[in-house]
Amino acid sequence: MVKAVVLLSGGLDSAVAAAIALKEAGGMECAFLHVNYGQRTEARELKAFNAIADFYGVKKRLIADISHLKEIGGSALTDESIEVPEADLSRKDIPVTYVPFRNAHLLSIAVSWAEVIGAREVYIGAVEEDSSGYPDCREEFFKSFEKAAELGTRPGTGIRIKTPLIHMRKSAIVKKGVELGAPLGLTWSCYKDSQEACGQCDSCLLRLRGFREAGVVDPIPYRKKEAKA
Amino acid sequence: MVKAVVLLSGGLDSAVAAAIALKEAGGMECAFLHVNYGQRTEARELKAFNAIADFYGVKKRLIADISHLKEIGGSALTDESIEVPEADLSRKDIPVTYVPFRNAHLLSIAVSWAEVIGAREVYIGAVEEDSSGYPDCREEFFKSFEKAAELGTRPGTGIRIKTPLIHMRKSAIVKKGVELGAPLGLTWSCYKDSQEACGQCDSCLLRLRGFREAGVVDPIPYRKKEAKA
Repeated sequence: MVKAVVLLSGGLDSAVAAAIALKEAGGMECAFLHVNYGQRTEARELKAFNAIADFYGVKKRLIADISHLKEIGGSALTDESIEVPEADLSRKDIPVTYVPFRNAHLLSIAVSWAEVIGAREVYIGAVEEDSSGYPDCREEFFKSFEKAAELGTRPGTGIRIKTPLIHMRKSAIVKKGVELGAPLGLTWSCYKDSQEACGQCDSCLLRLRGFREAGVVDPIPYRKKEAKA
Repeated sequence: MVKAVVLLSGGLDSAVAAAIALKEAGGMECAFLHVNYGQRTEARELKAFNAIADFYGVKKRLIADISHLKEIGGSALTDESIEVPEADLSRKDIPVTYVPFRNAHLLSIAVSWAEVIGAREVYIGAVEEDSSGYPDCREEFFKSFEKAAELGTRPGTGIRIKTPLIHMRKSAIVKKGVELGAPLGLTWSCYKDSQEACGQCDSCLLRLRGFREAGVVDPIPYRKKEAKA
């Protein structure tokens, strides 16, 4: 019996969500799910996923490929012809790094797997407060998807979508990760590069600012740490 | 500008849903989406999809592969070790041919594609009334998913999930298909076989009964037409 399916991209947020899930599981098994969607840093994220799963000794892993999201495109993360912009966290509109409705795909896979293996919870490390403002990272979206999952699975399945980071600031996520001993040095957050993080995209900027505000040194390598961060 | 994305498995129901979508589009373009999920008759269904799309001259097609549903298993359609049972429409529980939460995957792909190409509608030929009783074929599931899609896409996207067959009996679907000139002879519904339909699974039985009640001859070949139908 597996307690929870944990969506683990390999980034900072999902690694901390995984640490929380494992703690809440209290010794019961968790299953880790990774999804490749044709994003620029696909191979680097998968490497981070496996390193984190190895760190925690999690055996039950599923790697799903939904490369049709690349075919569908419409995002700088999946379409190489759209450049990943330099960070601008004062922006009010939805940035071009938004991958249309991506989290619904991730949750669908997690819920199907959870239903089959008997897990009652799905963890996702989405952040609404201190984020790029993607619509599919909002709490009301997850609540609504949970309802759809209740109606679209066998009666009594009752899978809960858990979003422990949804209202946390990045600095609080870093602190929580440190507190739980999460392997932050094994994570990868950069949207653009895979050897050294670019230090300039939204994701790098949010991460760097979070570490700085938490008073913790970010252990991963950067090509350039953006002054604004 | 594309008016609608139509989910087309290649079965009777989705072909009639496509005919309705094209009629409602009134000359505007529709895009056809097919999803392989590691089901037994995957190649046969894809052949039916392309034949129907050719029949209608639809150029905009997307074929997505979500073979992780086979890896996840838990269904006689995706796990060869679970036999497809003979039809039993008096059954009250959910049959083993149910693919856990499958329609959420299909809708997620359709909504992502619709958002990118600017389509405001997604058609799915799901049937609640005269069916095998899958939870993800219920109208309340689709209503709920539509709400999740509204919250999980860019504000103002407003994609509607259209289920024109949801309350139709199979015989009414056959009649509607004939009325609209849908290419019923190009469709494939059997869960089990790909040369001749088995005539004995739930899907064959529902189809045969629908044609019989509609007073129409089913144009596809059967190995054996189950007496109960």
